[in-house]
Amino acid sequence: MRRKTDRMIDQIAALGRGDTSARGLAETALAQAQTLCELNAFVALDPDKVLAAADASDGRRRAGFTLGPLDGIPIAVKDNFLTKDYPTTACSDALPLEPTDVDATLVARLREGGAVIFGKTNMHEWAYGATNTTSRFGPTRNPCNPGHITGGSSGGSAAAVAGGIVTAALGSDTGGSIRIPASACGIYGFKPTYGRASRHGVLPLSWSLDAPGPLAASLDDIAVLLSCLMGEDAGYAATRGSHPFQPVAALSRKARLVSLTGPGLERSDEVDAAVTAALQRAQGCTVETRALPGMRRFFGAWETILHCEATAYHQPRLATAAGFSPVTRAHLEAGQYLTAQELLRAQQVRAEFCALLASGLGDWDALVLPTLPVPAPAMGVDWQEFGGRRVSTQDSMTWFCWLGNLAGLPAVTLPCGLSSTGLPIGLMLMGRPGQDERLLQIAKFIDTAVNQTE
Amino acid sequence: MRRKTDRMIDQIAALGRGDTSARGLAETALAQAQTLCELNAFVALDPDKVLAAADASDGRRRAGFTLGPLDGIPIAVKDNFLTKDYPTTACSDALPLEPTDVDATLVARLREGGAVIFGKTNMHEWAYGATNTTSRFGPTRNPCNPGHITGGSSGGSAAAVAGGIVTAALGSDTGGSIRIPASACGIYGFKPTYGRASRHGVLPLSWSLDAPGPLAASLDDIAVLLSCLMGEDAGYAATRGSHPFQPVAALSRKARLVSLTGPGLERSDEVDAAVTAALQRAQGCTVETRALPGMRRFFGAWETILHCEATAYHQPRLATAAGFSPVTRAHLEAGQYLTAQELLRAQQVRAEFCALLASGLGDWDALVLPTLPVPAPAMGVDWQEFGGRRVSTQDSMTWFCWLGNLAGLPAVTLPCGLSSTGLPIGLMLMGRPGQDERLLQIAKFIDTAVNQTE
Repeated sequence: MRRKTDRMIDQIAALGRGDTSARGLAETALAQAQTLCELNAFVALDPDKVLAAADASDGRRRAGFTLGPLDGIPIAVKDNFLTKDYPTTACSDALPLEPTDVDATLVARLREGGAVIFGKTNMHEWAYGATNTTSRFGPTRNPCNPGHITGGSSGGSAAAVAGGIVTAALGSDTGGSIRIPASACGIYGFKPTYGRASRHGVLPLSWSLDAPGPLAASLDDIAVLLSCLMGEDAGYAATRGSHPFQPVAALSRKARLVSLTGPGLERSDEVDAAVTAALQRAQGCTVETRALPGMRRFFGAWETILHCEATAYHQPRLATAAGFSPVTRAHLEAGQYLTAQELLRAQQVRAEFCALLASGLGDWDALVLPTLPVPAPAMGVDWQEFGGRRVSTQDSMTWFCWLGNLAGLPAVTLPCGLSSTGLPIGLMLMGRPGQDERLLQIAKFIDTAVNQTE
Repeated sequence: MRRKTDRMIDQIAALGRGDTSARGLAETALAQAQTLCELNAFVALDPDKVLAAADASDGRRRAGFTLGPLDGIPIAVKDNFLTKDYPTTACSDALPLEPTDVDATLVARLREGGAVIFGKTNMHEWAYGATNTTSRFGPTRNPCNPGHITGGSSGGSAAAVAGGIVTAALGSDTGGSIRIPASACGIYGFKPTYGRASRHGVLPLSWSLDAPGPLAASLDDIAVLLSCLMGEDAGYAATRGSHPFQPVAALSRKARLVSLTGPGLERSDEVDAAVTAALQRAQGCTVETRALPGMRRFFGAWETILHCEATAYHQPRLATAAGFSPVTRAHLEAGQYLTAQELLRAQQVRAEFCALLASGLGDWDALVLPTLPVPAPAMGVDWQEFGGRRVSTQDSMTWFCWLGNLAGLPAVTLPCGLSSTGLPIGLMLMGRPGQDERLLQIAKFIDTAVNQTE
């Protein structure tokens, strides 16, 4: 899907050989950002800060050392990660346009690794939506076709990578917000197991569902990023006892994939064909198709938990007039009227869903689904039709992805083909909780079969 | 506090020596139950079933084998544990007076160990109260003074042990329901870490707070029981990954105790004096006094979670007229109107409380408090006064104990003296989650200093 030279690992190699400098990478990225400004991928980007960080990296390298593989690599950051050098607004007008004095843990880890923080990316307001069309800074446009949406809520991060501005960006994922725009823009996105990457300093949408993670130009890039990002953080209790990301070896045994179907898991014919063809090319894996019943009930549990937690977080802000688009405000106000009984029921259904995936589908290494049921929708189209369903564009974006958040699974999307209109189609794999390394190993195997043998 | 001959380990030894038989123990217990029938400790007890189980045990022993240390020991069971041979009513008139075809996991483990299930004990209706005065079968009376309550909700189990009918009984504990009556009746009670003993087949009060466990005549008895009862159970997900109880060695290093004080942790002068004197006798431990602020806020979280979960469980039954005393019904109906925001807030405060105990009080091996702020109240007295507080008798019973449930800690009560009117006073120790063995080791050390050196 992408030119080999666009990968972060190629940038790392070129820096190592001295074929380029951090300043060179930064200047190229700044020029590309300028060229593609119509995408509206960035909401804050200061060339002076970028170049200063790049020069500092080059200085280290000249002095004979680096801070690690990311030293000198430009990496963009979604606008809900706190950053010391840029304002953090979650693309809502409720928050000031001034930087805080705190870096989110993952941003701090990138900086400690020498990465050049390359501005803040556009997102769906408060991450409370999956189209990236609702933002204080206006909608984000898809680099593959600017008349189409990126999906969201990490749409700016996806556009920045897919547009070749940067090779990697941070995003966050509550119901697919990393995977959706990565798929819609034809790149790679990885949501870690809940609790394996710190959310400290990331403005929450729904604390029991949110997981931060990388979007990038290749799975090898993702592996480098996860090695930097994952592991325990005293600032975020859910990471307690979690271990750092272990480097990924090649697939040592046949992976057992389970392809999920059933009511609530419909997809368009061309998406289905692309995913099926991709799996047929992955000869080292077995693919079994299994029905997963009760999807709408499980979806309801995800939605109830999301609404309740989002409302709890935003409650103090609801009394003021500003800060929310009408749709977001309506969601948050409705969340106030959900009862404890409804929430408990949702929490119980969630436990049931986790148990079903853990032991109700036999032995599996990864669950496989399309990432999206349709290619990136055109701007301004509110409804999608596929597989006999008519679904709002919003719901079509989270259609499959929320499963991974409700169960806390690691999940990855990789490009697997193009639609008749030339838009990317993504394939999603979800692993068992904690098995992020194994999942990436399987994804790499399939990606090699699908994208690198042509 | 008790005669040495009343302990279960003495029964085990006597059976081993052939000094008595299971039938002998059963007949003595049945006679004592008859003598003390005014206590109303039992709500179902069938001599034929008891004697048949005892005879089977004696048969095994004659054939040269046993099923383990409990083989032939009469053990009573609280009326919210499902039993194949007795009805299970939770002392509510909502449930039929017919046995089910299922044993709760812990009852099954006792039977597999050869124990003689010795009837069902009286309890506070649905375990939704801590006095044991509300029951389909009438109130339970305290063997130390029948004009006083036993406390609850495992009041019948405590009365059966304290009355010398049996040396051990099963109870369940959501806000102290094992420890409260054990303390009020002058015996030992142990609530395991949440998730280390299966609740499968125990009618719930509040599933995230409930923990089943033993009441017994000595801490050595408790150790034998926990070895049989604890560990993984496929029927109860919370036990997954938990390990069986490991036998307890003598205390190998000085235990660090933290004695908690502050608003909300008041106690009567004579209770305080008894606990203080007991700790002074435990020379191998260091005792540091620490203030624990915010108790009423944490208590509110416990109460909200309890009401929400109890209402969720009973909701289908609320539409019918029968099954609940007016007070219980009022609680359950009020639980329907709690909002998701209130429950989420309570769940967050709970997480904060766990973090505070885990790392906000320095290094500690056990937290120490009185089990109750007052000795067992007289029947019919609705209010208690102590430490400048006027508190309902119900709230005085759970006054300290709920801390252990909100944080899921292992907790044990041991007798540590008598009030001016001859009623027992109990000392409570709570350990770190999962450290049940260490907690019992510390309790044993203190118990030896307090109760077995006279």
